[in-house]
Amino acid sequence: MKINGIPYRSVWVDDKDGWSVHIIDQTRLPFSFQTRRLTTAADVAQAICTMQVRGAPLIGAVAAYGIALALRVDSEDKTLNDTAAMLMNTRPTAVNLHHAIQRMVAYLHPISPHQRAHAAYEEAARICEEDIQTNKAIGNYGLDILQEIAHKKHHVHEPLHILTHCNAGWLATVDYGTALSPIYMAHDAGLNVHVWVDETRPRNQGASLTAWELQSHGVPHTVITDNAGGHLMQHKHVDIIIVGADRVTRTGDIANKIGTYLKALAARDNAVPFWVALPSTTIDWTISDGLKDIPIEERSSIEVTHVTGRNAQGLITQVCVVPEKTKVANPAFDVTPAHLITGLITEKGCCAATPKGMLSLFPEMKEYYSDSL
Amino acid sequence: MKINGIPYRSVWVDDKDGWSVHIIDQTRLPFSFQTRRLTTAADVAQAICTMQVRGAPLIGAVAAYGIALALRVDSEDKTLNDTAAMLMNTRPTAVNLHHAIQRMVAYLHPISPHQRAHAAYEEAARICEEDIQTNKAIGNYGLDILQEIAHKKHHVHEPLHILTHCNAGWLATVDYGTALSPIYMAHDAGLNVHVWVDETRPRNQGASLTAWELQSHGVPHTVITDNAGGHLMQHKHVDIIIVGADRVTRTGDIANKIGTYLKALAARDNAVPFWVALPSTTIDWTISDGLKDIPIEERSSIEVTHVTGRNAQGLITQVCVVPEKTKVANPAFDVTPAHLITGLITEKGCCAATPKGMLSLFPEMKEYYSDSL
Repeated sequence: MKINGIPYRSVWVDDKDGWSVHIIDQTRLPFSFQTRRLTTAADVAQAICTMQVRGAPLIGAVAAYGIALALRVDSEDKTLNDTAAMLMNTRPTAVNLHHAIQRMVAYLHPISPHQRAHAAYEEAARICEEDIQTNKAIGNYGLDILQEIAHKKHHVHEPLHILTHCNAGWLATVDYGTALSPIYMAHDAGLNVHVWVDETRPRNQGASLTAWELQSHGVPHTVITDNAGGHLMQHKHVDIIIVGADRVTRTGDIANKIGTYLKALAARDNAVPFWVALPSTTIDWTISDGLKDIPIEERSSIEVTHVTGRNAQGLITQVCVVPEKTKVANPAFDVTPAHLITGLITEKGCCAATPKGMLSLFPEMKEYYSDSL
Repeated sequence: MKINGIPYRSVWVDDKDGWSVHIIDQTRLPFSFQTRRLTTAADVAQAICTMQVRGAPLIGAVAAYGIALALRVDSEDKTLNDTAAMLMNTRPTAVNLHHAIQRMVAYLHPISPHQRAHAAYEEAARICEEDIQTNKAIGNYGLDILQEIAHKKHHVHEPLHILTHCNAGWLATVDYGTALSPIYMAHDAGLNVHVWVDETRPRNQGASLTAWELQSHGVPHTVITDNAGGHLMQHKHVDIIIVGADRVTRTGDIANKIGTYLKALAARDNAVPFWVALPSTTIDWTISDGLKDIPIEERSSIEVTHVTGRNAQGLITQVCVVPEKTKVANPAFDVTPAHLITGLITEKGCCAATPKGMLSLFPEMKEYYSDSL
């Protein structure tokens, strides 16, 4: 998407030297826009570890380029295997990272060493391109939904108000994003959209990343506290909610950033459509009960006790917001049961958050439903 | 309540000189405990304006002492009237402040000037004492509810988990608080309680004031983001919710700090009892539809964009958490409809959040229901 009129992706190969890899340092956002040039696999590992890049699809894509950077220097089997293992350890629980690295290794092993570096760049580029195509498809299917709702609005001059939680934007992917992709498509298609951006405590990805993305691309938006969405829905200021998902069961339950469930409840109470945008790789076909089967990561208490921002001198600073020695709990995700979800938006189309709906888009997954259908 | 074993109120007259007034500077909490000695009505006005004291009942009580401090120097009618007008302007929308000042003026006008200062101290003390008695009564009625729920718990060694939002504690009143009063009573009675403290963005009164109060009195508690409560309820980690209220309709709708409504929705979805603690002065008998009749204050965007905390050097600092020029909305309260509320806890007892329930405690208010009963 665009940053002040200039198109960007969240990872790209230098177009002058043709081999070094550039990323946006997301730890500096929204306070300063800085790109970083990565020239070694160690650079890539460090960028992932320090969360200069984050978001499952983006991490996978950047790690793929990490292998290409290593093979450029030494393309033997040992380097391929060692680099894969090293990158795998940067974020041990990131499924998408593992998939991307495994894909690179499986693709490159049969190729002779002197062709490997070139092949690695090509495969990494394909991973990026596939992510973009997936997100564009999600965006186009979501756009249909937004246009339909906009069409039904009584006050035609009022913008279509979309609420989103956390950051499922282009910064978390290679481009377009998932939940934000339909919004970018709608804005670019000339639809009058306005986004309510949940700040998304504790890490404030909404207030920082989503607000920055939307501002950079020129999409009208307003940041609100996570507490405010229910009130806005009660007063008819929200036309639709779109969120992303970290994991989806075959029955349509979704795990997403903590607080998503509360918004889904308010959506149902106020008859606001609640849609979840996701690439189909997010669906875990082996599980059927989100509340029982999806373990919820408990993250560091410092995310709650300390808030990062820009101080009066313009420096990025952390402040502690609780009394000393305060005990804190920090569950990072929650599960929204399928019955609260209007539907899923995937790269294959939209469907109900039900086994029947999901099978209509993915009939090849029928075997997983043998017990329940 | 106690601060590290020593009993405190949130306002008191100096026991040595017998006339100066002490408060806790709440703008320094939770980072540092500092009291302030107020010796003039101007001191009182400044303490209210700068929010060194906040919370409707406490502001009223401190303002009453402001009149006493003024009359101590000059007890003529003009001083009484001018001081009342000056204090009235410190927080123009605070109904409770106006009631306390009007009560003082009405009481003192008929009294001859040379007896007025003494009478003013006595009346201010009565205002404080009545607030304490109200809150103690709320606490005792709430204690019955907590004991009953604790009694029904299967795992007797597990604490009774109570979730609260914002700060309806003793710092907002003269002592005990409203929503926290039953919790203090239960803790002091030896009940094994544990409090989930919503941090309560944007002003973080939960993370700062409620956490500090509970820590100071020794009540076990854990701070969570406002996003986390729904997840905790889904997993049966919340036995009851108790919140305060800023305004209550005669039908039992309540306005309280933004985000309360989302917790009430999650409570209903997970069969968690949702109680509202309030002094009956909070009930506005003239209104019946909370969503339509209660105007919601839109507060400054800086409350959302900037977070106050202690930096690494121990200094209280503000940091900005959004990109520059970001638009923000900041509705400060929301309305929880009566049908989501298990019941109201008042100084007259507990009742259903319905006209019938409220009339059972306040039969003298029957006239207000002529149209609806």
